[in-house]
Amino acid sequence: MSAAAEATLSRDEAFARIRLLRSPNIGPVSYTQLLRRFGTASAALEALPDLAGRGGAPYRPAAIDRVEREIASVRKAGARYLFHDGPDYPVLLAELESPPPILTVRGDVALLQRPSVAVVGARNASAAAVKLSRDFATALAGQGYAVISGLARGIDAAAHRGALAGMEHGGGTVGVIASGIDISYPPENAELQEQVACEGLLIAEMPPGTEPLARHFPHRNRIIAGLATGTLVVEAAPKSGSLITARLAAEAGREVMAIPGSPLDSRSHGCNQLIREGAILVQRPEDVVELLVGFTGQPRSSFREHAPDYDNPLDDDRADIAAMLTLAPVAVDELIRQSGASAGAVQMALLELELAGRLVRHAAGRVSLMS
Amino acid sequence: MSAAAEATLSRDEAFARIRLLRSPNIGPVSYTQLLRRFGTASAALEALPDLAGRGGAPYRPAAIDRVEREIASVRKAGARYLFHDGPDYPVLLAELESPPPILTVRGDVALLQRPSVAVVGARNASAAAVKLSRDFATALAGQGYAVISGLARGIDAAAHRGALAGMEHGGGTVGVIASGIDISYPPENAELQEQVACEGLLIAEMPPGTEPLARHFPHRNRIIAGLATGTLVVEAAPKSGSLITARLAAEAGREVMAIPGSPLDSRSHGCNQLIREGAILVQRPEDVVELLVGFTGQPRSSFREHAPDYDNPLDDDRADIAAMLTLAPVAVDELIRQSGASAGAVQMALLELELAGRLVRHAAGRVSLMS
Repeated sequence: MSAAAEATLSRDEAFARIRLLRSPNIGPVSYTQLLRRFGTASAALEALPDLAGRGGAPYRPAAIDRVEREIASVRKAGARYLFHDGPDYPVLLAELESPPPILTVRGDVALLQRPSVAVVGARNASAAAVKLSRDFATALAGQGYAVISGLARGIDAAAHRGALAGMEHGGGTVGVIASGIDISYPPENAELQEQVACEGLLIAEMPPGTEPLARHFPHRNRIIAGLATGTLVVEAAPKSGSLITARLAAEAGREVMAIPGSPLDSRSHGCNQLIREGAILVQRPEDVVELLVGFTGQPRSSFREHAPDYDNPLDDDRADIAAMLTLAPVAVDELIRQSGASAGAVQMALLELELAGRLVRHAAGRVSLMS
Repeated sequence: MSAAAEATLSRDEAFARIRLLRSPNIGPVSYTQLLRRFGTASAALEALPDLAGRGGAPYRPAAIDRVEREIASVRKAGARYLFHDGPDYPVLLAELESPPPILTVRGDVALLQRPSVAVVGARNASAAAVKLSRDFATALAGQGYAVISGLARGIDAAAHRGALAGMEHGGGTVGVIASGIDISYPPENAELQEQVACEGLLIAEMPPGTEPLARHFPHRNRIIAGLATGTLVVEAAPKSGSLITARLAAEAGREVMAIPGSPLDSRSHGCNQLIREGAILVQRPEDVVELLVGFTGQPRSSFREHAPDYDNPLDDDRADIAAMLTLAPVAVDELIRQSGASAGAVQMALLELELAGRLVRHAAGRVSLMS
């Protein structure tokens, strides 16, 4: 644990927080609800088996030796933990609804205090767009910005490389990865990831040892958008991950910018469409600076009318149990059967509702909504 | 004169109107004021020497034989006149403040009843933009639109060619030229201009025999913008004539659209800047149709905040005499000296003010503003 975290959290409580978040069916929402209800993660862990186990199989939190191994891996990777209420936790990320409760980081956390811009785009980008990404990042890092990206191929890698080449006035680059802090992906970016960790900052939400699975990327994108005052999409296909990052930025109330391209080049269509939908067209790094320097919390971009057409990343593993409930008591077994979700997932959803004061438990393992 | 014009105007009055507009120092504003004040052009021509000559050299309207030669030239070119209050005069153009009082046209005036879009851009356009201009025009003419442009090299010529290739459902193309109706410019577009006149419609504001001078082009651009529900800029350098057309369209309350391009191609900068300033980004002909079909007189484009950085084309030949006047009488000779304008120009400016009820004439050739 870091010196900063130790200053505010006891070693035991930090351990308990990590263990709580790694326990079965605990996500950012239930983690936060449990901390609020019980005051500390240690107290929550003590109460959890009793709370979650009612009417179902016994609940087992994450094993202590697994948590010990995780902490050893973080240390070995030269990384440290940031907790959502700690002094080094990035302020803009903390403004999100349900921010990641625990991050692992390697490198210079002072970059999290810099004005910040996310630069994202396609993996199979055109040579022109790769050049634009690099040039914009160099210029922005040279003006003291933290350039945030996802360490993917193409636009992301070019943004990191450009920022590393241009760092001045405290600017630099922040890489957010979908894997654990000790795993690099894709292989050809391993050296770049190491350089970002050494000269900039590397951030992972997943525990060390985690391979980057498809379902982790929306979470990574949300962190990228959440860390930045504005997100710049350099080149992107329609319906690509970069556009999801843009939507997440808009939903967080941040600026959304895009670099246009010729309609004859299909790789420009995503950015052009973003601009049609309200993103600000930028041609030069100065356009980005002008927009972000003047940012007052009220974006000039109006890109947010359209409902996102992707699953809410926070609901990934959680059945929508609340919608199945009424004021009439129903058996938990019935909920499990109807939802198709695992017994553990249903129990945790019910726990969240109970902690939120929205659930009543009745005899014979039945539940209903609070009237 | 056309059958339609003859139905509403006597041959003598039509002749008088043409003669009035070709008389020294008469522009659209004074022409309209004189018609309003005297009811007919014949009456205005009779009163003019007396009105304009006060305290200065005698005023001579355009020579009758010159007007006769003009009318013969128009006939010989296969053209006809349209008067601002005639049944064939284009409705959208008539909505402008001070529309051209007399046009000469060759071809199919029914095109002026079609939904209309102006397609304009650089003369030295990229091959990609020339292709876009042609493809958009073909698609729009195929959907029944009149595609309006200026018969210049590059984007304009491609728009006319594309529209000629795609005409369906009453769509076609309208060429507006800065010269007289019987002059073609540039030389390599002579054949295209003839084709536009034969298969579409050709429009000139200047009298036949007029060579296309630089100062005529803003007037031509204003007609292009004024004829169309929306103006599409395909590719344009910053501060180019196409951007002036876009501004004129915005000032007339019409839609302004632009096709984006890569910031790495400097020829895209004008269009990208237009979009930054509120023009609608369009990628496909369908984007244009969608915007124009829904046009209710309230543009979705917001491109109009910026003051135009060009001279008002209507004030070309006219000193701003009104601004020099106060409630205190001043000698007309003094106004001529201070303004640096010709005696005739000052006299006509004063006439306009007088006709507008804003001028008082005093003894000894002095004038003042009406209190």
